[in-house]
Amino acid sequence: MIDLYTSPTPNGHKISVLLDELGVDYNLIPVDLSKAEQKTPAFLAMNPNGRIPVIVDRDNDDFVVFESGAIMIYLAEKFGCFLPEDAAGRSRTLQWLMFQMGGVGPMMGQANVFYRYFPEKIQPAIDRYQHECRRLFEVLDRRLGEAHYLAGDEITIADFANWCWVRTHTWSGVSVEGLDHLNRWLDELAARPGCQSGVRKPERMTESESLVKVAQSMVTR
Amino acid sequence: MIDLYTSPTPNGHKISVLLDELGVDYNLIPVDLSKAEQKTPAFLAMNPNGRIPVIVDRDNDDFVVFESGAIMIYLAEKFGCFLPEDAAGRSRTLQWLMFQMGGVGPMMGQANVFYRYFPEKIQPAIDRYQHECRRLFEVLDRRLGEAHYLAGDEITIADFANWCWVRTHTWSGVSVEGLDHLNRWLDELAARPGCQSGVRKPERMTESESLVKVAQSMVTR
Repeated sequence: MIDLYTSPTPNGHKISVLLDELGVDYNLIPVDLSKAEQKTPAFLAMNPNGRIPVIVDRDNDDFVVFESGAIMIYLAEKFGCFLPEDAAGRSRTLQWLMFQMGGVGPMMGQANVFYRYFPEKIQPAIDRYQHECRRLFEVLDRRLGEAHYLAGDEITIADFANWCWVRTHTWSGVSVEGLDHLNRWLDELAARPGCQSGVRKPERMTESESLVKVAQSMVTR
Repeated sequence: MIDLYTSPTPNGHKISVLLDELGVDYNLIPVDLSKAEQKTPAFLAMNPNGRIPVIVDRDNDDFVVFESGAIMIYLAEKFGCFLPEDAAGRSRTLQWLMFQMGGVGPMMGQANVFYRYFPEKIQPAIDRYQHECRRLFEVLDRRLGEAHYLAGDEITIADFANWCWVRTHTWSGVSVEGLDHLNRWLDELAARPGCQSGVRKPERMTESESLVKVAQSMVTR
């Protein structure tokens, strides 16, 4: 059994979506960011960076994995799904996963901080991040115009990772207007049962409440 | 033979360091960010995100890999080095690689932009990113107090990835004072021939010239 320590944020949803898509049973353990539960000694013993999500694999000597991108690779390899076995497809999946990890995630995160939560309104910082997010969305749109999914014909962890962030674009104040391929892909993933259930976990907060809490934790961490 | 399209930046150095550490022959193709060579149609055909580094593997049907983290995994797997074969060591390597990709890299990058290059001096943004970088350095320091390298006893791509960024901490205006484990590790990697040669490629600019160019490209992209 997998224990998943998580909160209703895009990085947390990446793992609940993947587990629901895999159809795997798991223990969902909500972590309340507003109470800084991710900074407690017990949590820091699992992830010294004090961030969700974290998994503990009870069937593998309680092996702990942190960093959402590394958790996705671990689970995809463990269950043999959503990470192609051929070297080229596998590498393309990791390339677009890294694009989310180093680009879409951090830039939407910063857009949220300055647009939604920073104590001062600093327009040049808001503009910088919203502009960069739109640029990244355009890169995804071009890619999705030449391939059905990010890594090619098959859906992979790269799609789930990027989708969990891009679907929250309104919260970041970034438009997806005119990006037809991106919108086709957003809608297609949104129709999948595993994606639908994954982004509702844990359920204790509304989406905007949870996003406020994420932004807050990013400012005060 | 590997073709490496790169510039003298931390993300570029991750790949030249790894290739020099592997002792592999490769074609070094400098990309001039100040001339926006990474935004030309030829370059965008390789990486739609218009960023260095990119590799082309001439021995594998000219397979293209972009995103520095994905390139590191590709090369470590191709040459069977710096990515442990046991599942636990491998996952720990990927966790600390993701820590660099999603944390150290983006946050030092933002610190550089606001501290070095943004047209306006926005102190709250400078403080935010410098503070977050110091926090991330403290996480690395604690980890390096319990293990010799980030993933354990063996040096891995996670060390090279983080080192290429953290070594430039002065440019970001972030101190490593008092972080004895981190300093021990910084010095140890700096003494390795492959690390020394890798961070001198390509050689056409001084370090601070190149970092100015990176910051510039981040603001204007």
